[in-house]
Amino acid sequence: MSAPGPRAGSSGTLGRSGFSPLMMRTGSTGSVPGKEPCDTAGNSAVHGTGGVTVARLAPRRRYAREVALEAITPAPILPVWASYAAVAVGGVAGASHAARRGFDVIGVLGLAIATGLGGLLLRDVLLQKGTPVVLVDPRYLLSACLAALVGFFFAGLIVRLNRLLVGLDALAMGLMVGLGVSAAIWYQLGVAAAIFLGVTTAVGGSVLRDLLSGEPPSVMRPGIFSGLAALIGAVAFEGLFKLALPVFWVQVGTIATVFAVRILALWRGWETPTSVDVTDRLWDFWARRGQRGRSP
Amino acid sequence: MSAPGPRAGSSGTLGRSGFSPLMMRTGSTGSVPGKEPCDTAGNSAVHGTGGVTVARLAPRRRYAREVALEAITPAPILPVWASYAAVAVGGVAGASHAARRGFDVIGVLGLAIATGLGGLLLRDVLLQKGTPVVLVDPRYLLSACLAALVGFFFAGLIVRLNRLLVGLDALAMGLMVGLGVSAAIWYQLGVAAAIFLGVTTAVGGSVLRDLLSGEPPSVMRPGIFSGLAALIGAVAFEGLFKLALPVFWVQVGTIATVFAVRILALWRGWETPTSVDVTDRLWDFWARRGQRGRSP
Amino acid sequence: MSAPGPRAGSSGTLGRSGFSPLMMRTGSTGSVPGKEPCDTAGNSAVHGTGGVTVARLAPRRRYAREVALEAITPAPILPVWASYAAVAVGGVAGASHAARRGFDVIGVLGLAIATGLGGLLLRDVLLQKGTPVVLVDPRYLLSACLAALVGFFFAGLIVRLNRLLVGLDALAMGLMVGLGVSAAIWYQLGVAAAIFLGVTTAVGGSVLRDLLSGEPPSVMRPGIFSGLAALIGAVAFEGLFKLALPVFWVQVGTIATVFAVRILALWRGWETPTSVDVTDRLWDFWARRGQRGRSP
Repeated sequence: MSAPGPRAGSSGTLGRSGFSPLMMRTGSTGSVPGKEPCDTAGNSAVHGTGGVTVARLAPRRRYAREVALEAITPAPILPVWASYAAVAVGGVAGASHAARRGFDVIGVLGLAIATGLGGLLLRDVLLQKGTPVVLVDPRYLLSACLAALVGFFFAGLIVRLNRLLVGLDALAMGLMVGLGVSAAIWYQLGVAAAIFLGVTTAVGGSVLRDLLSGEPPSVMRPGIFSGLAALIGAVAFEGLFKLALPVFWVQVGTIATVFAVRILALWRGWETPTSVDVTDRLWDFWARRGQRGRSP
Repeated sequence: MSAPGPRAGSSGTLGRSGFSPLMMRTGSTGSVPGKEPCDTAGNSAVHGTGGVTVARLAPRRRYAREVALEAITPAPILPVWASYAAVAVGGVAGASHAARRGFDVIGVLGLAIATGLGGLLLRDVLLQKGTPVVLVDPRYLLSACLAALVGFFFAGLIVRLNRLLVGLDALAMGLMVGLGVSAAIWYQLGVAAAIFLGVTTAVGGSVLRDLLSGEPPSVMRPGIFSGLAALIGAVAFEGLFKLALPVFWVQVGTIATVFAVRILALWRGWETPTSVDVTDRLWDFWARRGQRGRSP
Repeated sequence: MSAPGPRAGSSGTLGRSGFSPLMMRTGSTGSVPGKEPCDTAGNSAVHGTGGVTVARLAPRRRYAREVALEAITPAPILPVWASYAAVAVGGVAGASHAARRGFDVIGVLGLAIATGLGGLLLRDVLLQKGTPVVLVDPRYLLSACLAALVGFFFAGLIVRLNRLLVGLDALAMGLMVGLGVSAAIWYQLGVAAAIFLGVTTAVGGSVLRDLLSGEPPSVMRPGIFSGLAALIGAVAFEGLFKLALPVFWVQVGTIATVFAVRILALWRGWETPTSVDVTDRLWDFWARRGQRGRSP
């Protein structure tokens, strides 16, 4: 069995969604028969980057594996074009960010690609399981380039559609969180690493955009609920997945959580909490307790 | 056939340069006989990083594979020392950048390595096909360190040779574009990913240099034709490669294109185009068309 | 023999510490019997990330391989909790860095993770030998998160313990240098790459912290002996390793070297050397020599 299955801890809980050992073998469908299976065969089949494997898979199936959970569950999942749309939304945000600052054509293109694809690129570079899917599947780069075109020529339109874009950005972030966490689960990483990768995938594009445009990453600064919303979403994905919900509903639940947190924070004017120094309070508490203990 | 061959789409066009299936097997020359070939065997042979493989290849052949096209074509290609020279040129630029800002010995060394090797490092990290060649082949790090020495002690010389360095930098960028695109072609990535990797390899060093010295990346800013020249060069490489020219001439053509664009832009004072907002114009156009359509 | 052994050049010198071919096979202990070993099997065993391999190794042994030298020497090495402690020390520094700047909860958490794990993450991403160990072993992320908690709530305590933290930071940097160099040696990279990786592992966290908080990386600036201390430590590790000392003493020697250099530099107020321009002096020297040669 060369295909890396789901995490040992959660394989039992997948039973309710019709999980069977048969499904586990989907990952190695592409391996050439009559050849001793290697550990990498399963991985490259998942990503569709293997030398021989690629040619034998129909294009549709090859890229659909991006949403890595498909292979471990027969339940319906979000279609792959949702990922392209999320990349395009991020790309438009990056391109208009560059256009507002008067960057040139390379700046607009670069920031569109960095903002749109940065999160997925960072996820795959950190996972180290073959060439990043955004380089293998040309539709990702195409989505980002189309977004760059829109940002280059239609800055006025983007300003007018600002409210729509804020909503779309919140939806896209929810999807990115899911793509990050599910890839970590697929490669059997632990809960902490899965949440870390979910947040990284969600905010990676915006961090890369800020770095490349020479500004301090806004996700680290207090104010907007973007990083915290991604963290809450990643925890929600892990929780819903542990509840053995069908993967489709885990994904939808994550997107709804991130969307709700971000829109509520905007509407109610919530601010993210900054650090509090409890050293003195704790010191006083212990000091008084010590005095009381001594005085009787 | 464990060796990843050239892209399926372009294998036919290579016929003119004497391409044969026999050449495709060159990639797996280093695999140990009597062992079932794994998918990784071909990859590690290309990079020369495999455990057993390395010891059996003569040093010269091991590093020559860096210019990855060698194995898929019998035509002459640019010698590998051209890559070392390009790294050294980038390294001198990075070191003098650091020396001008009064950085210390680590700053000069760090910026020389980042500027010289950053592009190739970024390419290999994004491709995820084994340890980056700049770490495997010690001559790359050596070239960058020598460049750091020159930048540390001969800042005055660099100022006097400024014109020469601008020309060498343009030549080095052309070579880097070629190394990026050809690696993407070798690993069967699509046209969009190949162009993306070509530009990334060419400008990666300068982006890393600016980030590490705490400045906004200059390649994103309007003005100099550096990113745009790399983009034009990457498109030229893809076009010439599709025309089935011998790889040597594809490389030379790319370098000439990048060099010509950059020198022409400097000489004529060209500025890169910044974004234009055509929303209102398009709005008016459609509005008038609608009126005309209604009025008759 | 699928396990990548130590560098060919230094395998002989390990004889004194009881090195035997038998030890070399430790790396592939986890490979499934009855299966043709692939090149990757050895790698995944080292990192403990292989699909089947992981389940068959007891947790203790699985993570202990992080200190990669364990498998090539029977000599005692530093325990793996030293790595967790080093990550926690870096994490506290990053978290208090964020808290001082008024960042929010995500900023404190992000900078704690970036500062604590950045070096090891960068090392594994550059080596490209499977998923980074800091993602596979959850205790690394846990250490960084605990450090973030301390930085979030006990900023006052950290200020009071400043002197202790400077010392701990110097010790942690020494350990990081060792982890970087030993991983490069384990994967048979050359001396230059090993020193480069040692320095990168040691200063990577601080560079990432500065980039994410929107400041120019302090390691490049003149003043503090941090990058230079790491460079001296990496050279010391290589030198002591070449002397065939037991690995435990190589590690301790490296930590002592880095600690001594940093504390001495603080105490004596040493400044790192900045670049000097010897062009004119060399010019004059040669010009005078030429005159003398002509005058007789």
